[in-house]
Amino acid sequence: MTTQRPSPKKSLLDLGYVLPEAPSPVASYVPAKRVGDLVYVSGQIPLSDGVLLACGRVPDEVSERSAFEAARQCALNALAVLAAESSQGLDGVAEIIRLGVFVQCDSEFTGQPAVANGASELMESVFGSEGRHVRAAVGSISLPLNAPVEVELLARMHPE
Amino acid sequence: MTTQRPSPKKSLLDLGYVLPEAPSPVASYVPAKRVGDLVYVSGQIPLSDGVLLACGRVPDEVSERSAFEAARQCALNALAVLAAESSQGLDGVAEIIRLGVFVQCDSEFTGQPAVANGASELMESVFGSEGRHVRAAVGSISLPLNAPVEVELLARMHPE
Amino acid sequence: MTTQRPSPKKSLLDLGYVLPEAPSPVASYVPAKRVGDLVYVSGQIPLSDGVLLACGRVPDEVSERSAFEAARQCALNALAVLAAESSQGLDGVAEIIRLGVFVQCDSEFTGQPAVANGASELMESVFGSEGRHVRAAVGSISLPLNAPVEVELLARMHPE
Repeated sequence: MTTQRPSPKKSLLDLGYVLPEAPSPVASYVPAKRVGDLVYVSGQIPLSDGVLLACGRVPDEVSERSAFEAARQCALNALAVLAAESSQGLDGVAEIIRLGVFVQCDSEFTGQPAVANGASELMESVFGSEGRHVRAAVGSISLPLNAPVEVELLARMHPE
Repeated sequence: MTTQRPSPKKSLLDLGYVLPEAPSPVASYVPAKRVGDLVYVSGQIPLSDGVLLACGRVPDEVSERSAFEAARQCALNALAVLAAESSQGLDGVAEIIRLGVFVQCDSEFTGQPAVANGASELMESVFGSEGRHVRAAVGSISLPLNAPVEVELLARMHPE
Repeated sequence: MTTQRPSPKKSLLDLGYVLPEAPSPVASYVPAKRVGDLVYVSGQIPLSDGVLLACGRVPDEVSERSAFEAARQCALNALAVLAAESSQGLDGVAEIIRLGVFVQCDSEFTGQPAVANGASELMESVFGSEGRHVRAAVGSISLPLNAPVEVELLARMHPE
């Protein structure tokens, strides 16, 4: 007997998260663009209710742990954008394809993968094996609004 | 009564721009690659007639305003590459999907979105709502040839 | 009379390279993800038998030449990942579409294109004109595990 996976929304709730409102872009671009079954999502920063969860450089101004949580918030925001792209909300997401993760850090920091896991692990928690994705995680000298992390995303949607 | 949108080429001219020659890559790669209806465009730097419009780091060596104009030049170069991919030139472009924008800056600069708008606003001016795209804009410690900005692009083309 | 191009695997051998084992991701993500005929490959660092070929910043800690070789190793690792995605191994690769190349460097270094050529030239050597791709090459303040280069890749595969 197989147990069915809970819905992505239920998985989020079980983890103690509520899908935020999709954040508005901070400049002249759109949050998401659909091409066939693919949806590209703009780089997300860790805004929560309009305020950055953390500000500054990893690890001297923002700890690796806080940056991990910030990466997760970026991912939550990306999920909110994705959900808004489908009439079925998160259930419309077929799989996560790629994350691009930029970590604002000093020149000695080499823990970008650990920070980016904040975003990656959320995807697997919410979507199971369909949430597993490819990834590029790199250091950045500075990011918009002094965010410690920025995450962009590519996903495949179920046909409407 | 509806007014028809002017052609992308006309829009460019109305803005006072002339489409440049598609720049040659500065190394072992190609300017564009087509996969089905999508065209990927290599990272463009703000070359104009073979010379960089500006050189160096934002904001101490290159002002935010100059970097905005440099980003627009990168975008113009990307449009030149796109136009060369279609027998219809710019009219062959169906929509702009994504821009990746890298800004050479110091560790205190957080205005990457404002700089990237130089590229993003051109796209909307030229293509209207089809020019609106997703975007990732990040800081970079240094860029090829000491360019202040590099812009890569993904577009969807009309079938030939 | 036309001469047939040697197979990608033969081309690699002729160049003196052996396809490595596909490296395991260093965190919570997968090496490759297939969407239709496209395969996205995660950012690769220059691991060879589990050890980085070089460590540190270009050019003071890692010479431009060593970084070029490191970029080639990243590309070899990406090819190993691609080969594992097809029942035909490297012969299953139809074309290389895009490379994203991040070079860990100081703020004065502007030779990212020369470093990235280590990856780009390998693709052309192995796949001929199908190996030619678009590219974004940028500087990065720091990279995972202190790698001097990280390379991500997008390729199109032959239908299985």
